[in-house]
Amino acid sequence: MSSLITLTTDYGSRDAFAASIKGVIFKINPQAQIVDISNEIATQDIWEAAFTLRSAYNHFPKGTVHLAVVDPGVGSGRRPIVVVTESYYFVGPDNGLFSLIYLEAERIRVHHITSTHYFLPNPGPTFHGRDIFAPVASWLAKGIPSGNFGDEITDYTKLNIPVPKASANTIEGHVVHIDRFGNIITNITYKDLQPLLAEGSDLGIVTVGIVGKQIKGLKKFYAEAGPGEPSAIINSSGALEVFIFKQNARTALSVKRGESVRLSVGS
Amino acid sequence: MSSLITLTTDYGSRDAFAASIKGVIFKINPQAQIVDISNEIATQDIWEAAFTLRSAYNHFPKGTVHLAVVDPGVGSGRRPIVVVTESYYFVGPDNGLFSLIYLEAERIRVHHITSTHYFLPNPGPTFHGRDIFAPVASWLAKGIPSGNFGDEITDYTKLNIPVPKASANTIEGHVVHIDRFGNIITNITYKDLQPLLAEGSDLGIVTVGIVGKQIKGLKKFYAEAGPGEPSAIINSSGALEVFIFKQNARTALSVKRGESVRLSVGS
Amino acid sequence: MSSLITLTTDYGSRDAFAASIKGVIFKINPQAQIVDISNEIATQDIWEAAFTLRSAYNHFPKGTVHLAVVDPGVGSGRRPIVVVTESYYFVGPDNGLFSLIYLEAERIRVHHITSTHYFLPNPGPTFHGRDIFAPVASWLAKGIPSGNFGDEITDYTKLNIPVPKASANTIEGHVVHIDRFGNIITNITYKDLQPLLAEGSDLGIVTVGIVGKQIKGLKKFYAEAGPGEPSAIINSSGALEVFIFKQNARTALSVKRGESVRLSVGS
Repeated sequence: MSSLITLTTDYGSRDAFAASIKGVIFKINPQAQIVDISNEIATQDIWEAAFTLRSAYNHFPKGTVHLAVVDPGVGSGRRPIVVVTESYYFVGPDNGLFSLIYLEAERIRVHHITSTHYFLPNPGPTFHGRDIFAPVASWLAKGIPSGNFGDEITDYTKLNIPVPKASANTIEGHVVHIDRFGNIITNITYKDLQPLLAEGSDLGIVTVGIVGKQIKGLKKFYAEAGPGEPSAIINSSGALEVFIFKQNARTALSVKRGESVRLSVGS
Repeated sequence: MSSLITLTTDYGSRDAFAASIKGVIFKINPQAQIVDISNEIATQDIWEAAFTLRSAYNHFPKGTVHLAVVDPGVGSGRRPIVVVTESYYFVGPDNGLFSLIYLEAERIRVHHITSTHYFLPNPGPTFHGRDIFAPVASWLAKGIPSGNFGDEITDYTKLNIPVPKASANTIEGHVVHIDRFGNIITNITYKDLQPLLAEGSDLGIVTVGIVGKQIKGLKKFYAEAGPGEPSAIINSSGALEVFIFKQNARTALSVKRGESVRLSVGS
Repeated sequence: MSSLITLTTDYGSRDAFAASIKGVIFKINPQAQIVDISNEIATQDIWEAAFTLRSAYNHFPKGTVHLAVVDPGVGSGRRPIVVVTESYYFVGPDNGLFSLIYLEAERIRVHHITSTHYFLPNPGPTFHGRDIFAPVASWLAKGIPSGNFGDEITDYTKLNIPVPKASANTIEGHVVHIDRFGNIITNITYKDLQPLLAEGSDLGIVTVGIVGKQIKGLKKFYAEAGPGEPSAIINSSGALEVFIFKQNARTALSVKRGESVRLSVGS
């Protein structure tokens, strides 16, 4: 049993929100190891939290409890849940935050958290991260079976996640994230691209269109690109990424999340 | 004995200040667990550090050592201190940083740190966080009795903290903090409000005045508020908070710390 | 054997890069303790990483593994290396990141990491922090001898680091870092200054010239300086630092890294 708990929130690093959660976890489970995935998610940006959690969760040891709280509906009717997959636990609000986990995991079980005796005494309506999710995550990491927190549900919330549209020679996708370096990450993956490529065909036959620019070929590593040249690569998550070597592509190309991207193969 | 040490500083996350402190702690006490409460306190803002520490400290296990360093007077005559309460230790400069702890704790003992053999060798005049406070916190967490660090003092520094002025129907307070979400936190608490309410009276009879706006009633949770509507709530620390659902109330209302807030009850 | 691993990167705190590295470390070595030195290094700023790592590394316990990744050349021919000194291990790209360690350590051994069986399976070309450096650091902290990762090399990369030019009465240096407080740190150290001072001579005879301003004398601590007055001090790393008490000297003086600084002694 791992006692590892990760944290993905929009609480920031300046206020004491994330620290209060950690205190609550340690009070229940002094052996816990806590790792921040990110507390810098844009405020109330459920998609960014889902994306960021997906980038990291499966690098952690089996049994890790992933606590994620981006929770504009806190205190309303939205349900607190525990999600159980083959290898991990997830704790947070039922607002779609775990949608990408639902897509990737083979087996999913979702419990509606209703066992209030695991909560802090007198939980308030504004900070369930501290009052409900932190203690539940801590008890889970201590070995309490997920079924103890509440009954299984099947009508949990899933974000509407548009998938790329592929034809014989093209894939239409969009920008799903822009990282600290200004690299532009799309929802087009190498798996989407493979069927379009004849066996042994070179990645040089790929063209990526974004904000009116046509990028020819895919680079094998960042430094292969010339200075100032908009370039594309398959990144460490297997996704098509647009970048400019040693520059911020977001700024240079004025791209925002949601922007259309068109990949085509051949002349 | 907990070996948990928390950190509240204005050192930021980019420079190596906080990390140096952690290294020093681990050199003395390899079993220590260190948790950042915040290293992003506004530079030299003793009040913000006091407020942030207060928001989190009592969620940690009994015996936790809270190390807090916002220290414009470093190297001058201001004293280094250890504060001991029923449940916690605090280590830092005697500049008022622990004022809210003094208000909340039932029993307080304050020691002037003078036992230089616990310091790093040749402590400099600019970084007592590393040279004095970190080793003292680490030795404390390792079980050295607080009395070993120096004699008890009673003339420790307290910030002048204005309390809300209550009459039969009104409470005059002010803004004490604005959080990452732009939520505006006041020094008026639910405890202040209770005496003004007849038993069983509805929170709908409360009006909150701020920057010329009159906010009618208190919400029970954030999502209860309509879009764009300045609203008020009792938050997770029991304080009156002004917010706009899914918006930044600080920006929308142009409010700064120190702004007056007036709560009134009845028509 | 310490199981402490530190992290110095330009990955930021918002994306999941640093967290993925931590997950990989814990999968291999569940006993690891991980401490961030900084993940907020300016993107691809090798010098800032070198400077920040140098500020903190020797405060950690003997045996600590310092993992540092600012790596614009990731995926290209630049080599991954392990550096071994008397007291520490360093893991990262061979791009000059460890130049200040090479200057300070008495004995240095550098290994070119080539033993791919320590890598994650199928390492990609864009995120060696996760795929190569994290597992190597984790195995090192677990006790795998440094020689197992690859052969020793002697042609490792060193940044060209200009040293101050001293004459009988003056030292010419430059600004090497500006910290969160806006304090301006130079490459002139107290060691450089000592030979210019007659025994017992007062630090009041020192003048520091920067951006046309002449700062007379060195302060003993920050609060000794008057309000708004550009001042100089020997800081906690033994370096000459220009500051304005309770103000941001960078903003007030419009100073950037690289700016010339001239220290002179006598009238």
